[in-house]
Amino acid sequence: MFDQQLAQKGAENLKNLREKRPLIHNITNYVVMNYTANALLACGASPVMAHAKEEVEEMVSFAGALVLNIGTLTPNWIDSMLKAGKRANELNVPIILDPVGSGATKLRTDSAKRLIDELEIRVVRGNASEVLSLAHEGSRTRGVDSIHSVDEAADAASVLARELNTTLAITGEVDLITDGERIYRVSNGHELMGYVTGTGCTATVIIGAFLAVDDDSVVATTTALAYFGLAGEKGAAKAQAPGSFQMSLLDALFTIDEKQLKDGAKIQGSVS
Amino acid sequence: MFDQQLAQKGAENLKNLREKRPLIHNITNYVVMNYTANALLACGASPVMAHAKEEVEEMVSFAGALVLNIGTLTPNWIDSMLKAGKRANELNVPIILDPVGSGATKLRTDSAKRLIDELEIRVVRGNASEVLSLAHEGSRTRGVDSIHSVDEAADAASVLARELNTTLAITGEVDLITDGERIYRVSNGHELMGYVTGTGCTATVIIGAFLAVDDDSVVATTTALAYFGLAGEKGAAKAQAPGSFQMSLLDALFTIDEKQLKDGAKIQGSVS
Amino acid sequence: MFDQQLAQKGAENLKNLREKRPLIHNITNYVVMNYTANALLACGASPVMAHAKEEVEEMVSFAGALVLNIGTLTPNWIDSMLKAGKRANELNVPIILDPVGSGATKLRTDSAKRLIDELEIRVVRGNASEVLSLAHEGSRTRGVDSIHSVDEAADAASVLARELNTTLAITGEVDLITDGERIYRVSNGHELMGYVTGTGCTATVIIGAFLAVDDDSVVATTTALAYFGLAGEKGAAKAQAPGSFQMSLLDALFTIDEKQLKDGAKIQGSVS
Repeated sequence: MFDQQLAQKGAENLKNLREKRPLIHNITNYVVMNYTANALLACGASPVMAHAKEEVEEMVSFAGALVLNIGTLTPNWIDSMLKAGKRANELNVPIILDPVGSGATKLRTDSAKRLIDELEIRVVRGNASEVLSLAHEGSRTRGVDSIHSVDEAADAASVLARELNTTLAITGEVDLITDGERIYRVSNGHELMGYVTGTGCTATVIIGAFLAVDDDSVVATTTALAYFGLAGEKGAAKAQAPGSFQMSLLDALFTIDEKQLKDGAKIQGSVS
Repeated sequence: MFDQQLAQKGAENLKNLREKRPLIHNITNYVVMNYTANALLACGASPVMAHAKEEVEEMVSFAGALVLNIGTLTPNWIDSMLKAGKRANELNVPIILDPVGSGATKLRTDSAKRLIDELEIRVVRGNASEVLSLAHEGSRTRGVDSIHSVDEAADAASVLARELNTTLAITGEVDLITDGERIYRVSNGHELMGYVTGTGCTATVIIGAFLAVDDDSVVATTTALAYFGLAGEKGAAKAQAPGSFQMSLLDALFTIDEKQLKDGAKIQGSVS
Repeated sequence: MFDQQLAQKGAENLKNLREKRPLIHNITNYVVMNYTANALLACGASPVMAHAKEEVEEMVSFAGALVLNIGTLTPNWIDSMLKAGKRANELNVPIILDPVGSGATKLRTDSAKRLIDELEIRVVRGNASEVLSLAHEGSRTRGVDSIHSVDEAADAASVLARELNTTLAITGEVDLITDGERIYRVSNGHELMGYVTGTGCTATVIIGAFLAVDDDSVVATTTALAYFGLAGEKGAAKAQAPGSFQMSLLDALFTIDEKQLKDGAKIQGSVS
């Protein structure tokens, strides 16, 4: 029923991540800086948070991946993101964008679109309304309000992924990952994840860590989301409420081993 | 002994909060952003942190309440608070102010007073010295140093509430809530709350959430503080030290049900 | 085997800290603000985070110590650090510097050096590469890449401490503390501390708290690191993974008593 090949690939990515301990450079929002840094440490990566335009080019040159997250955005942070991102592109450091709040305010929507226009972004992860808000004017992409089924969401994401020439990850009860050709669905996860702030942002940094060890953006993203969702399941088995779950989720990121990921990943694929 | 009518009203507010899941817009300090976002999620609300002057007016238009908190303040944040607050006033979105550190430095005191002067603030929550520092020059309000009993504090708060035309909440071992006419005292709480940073700021956001579902500022504030204090008691029953208490407090916010709040609220009232 | 006199001094410092509850003023990075504030509360101190140039001089005048930490640095924060630091020097408030990332980027290295040049800094705490990056051009200090043993690190640190006229703390599996004359080693700690973000920054604030009650910088730093490392050991006895450890470490800071610190401190000294 589930894709065994990708589950196996996930286990390999986790192994490589823990061996190589890549530096993940984050330009991200204030709310989640601490939690996402701890999540990166727990999964085996090495986080750095740095946003000064005076140092982002230097910092990203040491990194295995660059995470751009527009929560708690002010316009000067976009300058730093562009500077870091352009250097990352030169150095072939993969970039993942989390368009927090895109679609909700003009600042967020415009900023997310500008980052996508000016940088080569490997993966964009958000919820359905954030991701689908990234379509250009005149796009064939359907808006989130016109989508009434998982299949319609998959179609809209495929169209948009081709338009933006990137991999899109729409996370929710079932995560949808597509580059416009391949489509995967990940059904790992637990509803308590919705009661901890920044679990979406945390999914993004875990994808960033997997991108640092896997050149195939679709596979890196899909396996990272299976790992993160499985950590949610295992964390929820030890906690019944969001405070203790916040910590048991980090514990699970740390303790899940390759075999558990291989056995627990709920990935389903199809060619679009 | 305790006010059963308000305890019942608290249970109704909690029910409405969890059903409506109002968006609470926070312009707040860096230290507590993560914890207060998690507290809002745990109690059933939906938090957003956004401070850019380019987007606060748009963001607050979606909100059920606006929380202004001047911890880790720099002057440019005040501009955003004023902009968001003026739009909130136009839209009748209730505003709660947490004057962190008012009375300690001139920047904080002046900023808190300016917010109160230029905005219609529904509730101000702080400790006694923060709240009483808000009196204007020539005010009849006694300074905190001249107050030597709970009754003197209640008198000072009543005078100040009338002068500022707002509801004041002075939190401490016993919380005091007054709009200058009604006075309530809440004796829920636990001393471990003093060993976790931002519990005062967290009380503020919980009041913000209750303001989103209850138009009576005094009742919303009083019942919110009973709920938060009860969560402190229940959290402390599961944790003996501040690290684990930090998380068990969030757990308790999530698990307390309407009946528990109705039975556990320690609210006492009197007409001033 | 271990230095009993310093262990006893550590117990006295902890007692004084909990009795006096000194205010510790932090100008620090966004990632750790919440955790270090909670660590200061747990150990008995009273934290304040404030960075606006309009208020730092006023705030530091109430403080028992000033913590400067250059993580998530932007240049305008350096101005505030200099302003606060100069006032601290005038008032004889001890300053501790955490040169996060010094040696990694030019902004960080230059900023750390500038703070050391323009302020009288009582203690600098970092890892070996951060601390040794602070040597001036033409210094006799060996770079971190040329150091291949603990003895070589001790020699390099001694030379640099004399050059900079400060106490240096290089933390790692074994912590090394020296003012260029005395050298102490602390072997308390646990490897899980490396999986929680900001444990280095937390060591720094604990030293800051001890500086507020002990004028001997070397003794304050050494005993603070023994206390913090012991908390790591006790926290790890209750948690097997970094999420729950993050909280059990705070619990241990709160629950360790004077006798436990006296018995558990693993301090070894020698004269250089």
